[in-house]
Amino acid sequence: MKQLLIASTSTLHSGSYLDYLMEDLKIHFKNINEIVFIPYARPGGISHDAYTKKANEAFNTIGITVKGLHQFENPIEAIKNAKGIFTGGGNTFVLVNALYKHNLLNTLTSIINDGIPYLGTSAGSNICGLTMRTTNDMPIVYPPNFKTLGCVPFNINPHYLDPDTNSKHMGETRETRIKEFHKFNTQPVVGLREGSWLEVKGASIQLKGTLNARIFEYEKEPYEVETGIFLNELK
Amino acid sequence: MKQLLIASTSTLHSGSYLDYLMEDLKIHFKNINEIVFIPYARPGGISHDAYTKKANEAFNTIGITVKGLHQFENPIEAIKNAKGIFTGGGNTFVLVNALYKHNLLNTLTSIINDGIPYLGTSAGSNICGLTMRTTNDMPIVYPPNFKTLGCVPFNINPHYLDPDTNSKHMGETRETRIKEFHKFNTQPVVGLREGSWLEVKGASIQLKGTLNARIFEYEKEPYEVETGIFLNELK
Repeated sequence: MKQLLIASTSTLHSGSYLDYLMEDLKIHFKNINEIVFIPYARPGGISHDAYTKKANEAFNTIGITVKGLHQFENPIEAIKNAKGIFTGGGNTFVLVNALYKHNLLNTLTSIINDGIPYLGTSAGSNICGLTMRTTNDMPIVYPPNFKTLGCVPFNINPHYLDPDTNSKHMGETRETRIKEFHKFNTQPVVGLREGSWLEVKGASIQLKGTLNARIFEYEKEPYEVETGIFLNELK
Repeated sequence: MKQLLIASTSTLHSGSYLDYLMEDLKIHFKNINEIVFIPYARPGGISHDAYTKKANEAFNTIGITVKGLHQFENPIEAIKNAKGIFTGGGNTFVLVNALYKHNLLNTLTSIINDGIPYLGTSAGSNICGLTMRTTNDMPIVYPPNFKTLGCVPFNINPHYLDPDTNSKHMGETRETRIKEFHKFNTQPVVGLREGSWLEVKGASIQLKGTLNARIFEYEKEPYEVETGIFLNELK
């Protein structure tokens, strides 16, 4: 049975790295003492080592050791043997490019389908959707494809942000961008606000955290759903 | 001699479409009564016809007729025969995808080098840089390449936005994103605030409008340049 925790962000404004998720992560990674961390998204361009250290420090507080995927000689084998997976945020283009370079997408999908628990934050959540076409990131590298893991039958927009009605900036709002997405794509998009996450257990997909999420479906007006709701029928 | 006007935005918060640029556009397109409009970026997903109508209405006020590139049977020939070009803003991925699909990049570079006056706003400015890797847009389609016209020897970041120090949102600031770009790319980036533009005349590149611009060079701290400055040495 698939087990994913797909989080909008790793860190809340007032919090520290992953702290708001820790109680749920204890349950999500129950009886697991070592997980594999995918550091490829490199937030701020930090090294794989530095990023892995940060993840390890956070997980140590619940008795879990984190090993960086870059530390293994054979990344495909490392994923196949992992007891749990965490893909951190950063730049989705950089992440997806590295996943394709190391030929990891099929292996990841396969072990996730086999029930290995997965945690994604931000870019690591984006890749759980059908494509990365609703990322907010800058296209600083050119990946071979925008297709991602498809662990859920829709796209994710992490760090979803409501329009700032006081802004004088003429750049597009997030809602405008996702509406443009639907001029060229038909799958739904789940806008996950910071502090929200999706909990996937087999065919069940539940919105968790304290906030509503915003759902964008093709040729429909966007709408809000309340925390606790199941999105099992969204596709 | 190359003649380009590379603008951050088409529209200021308090203004109407292109109005703040009109006095300069009269000079830029002097003695020209018809220009070709490239509507491919489709802001908000509007149709090529609707977008061309909007551009035509604005240019009519200075006695210029706008024809949409989509109205020509042979877009390459239309570009070759154009007396002036305007590429409007919208989604840079959609724009660049269409330019590759119609095999227009070489022809565009060639006529711009021959001195046909060019106006770009937003996405239409982005493509004047070496690559589209510093666009702010959502990757809603997958273009065959991120390489763009290279009319200037650096990248453009239109709609450049200073960090909002009051924000509690944890998404990356524009500055963070461009710094990440420089972990993977070495060319400079010119952050053009809304209301700024670059005027290119042959080898001369001048910052115009009322605002400063922010320059990001590889392995340097970003810095401000004042309006009126020449960026001829930036590469």
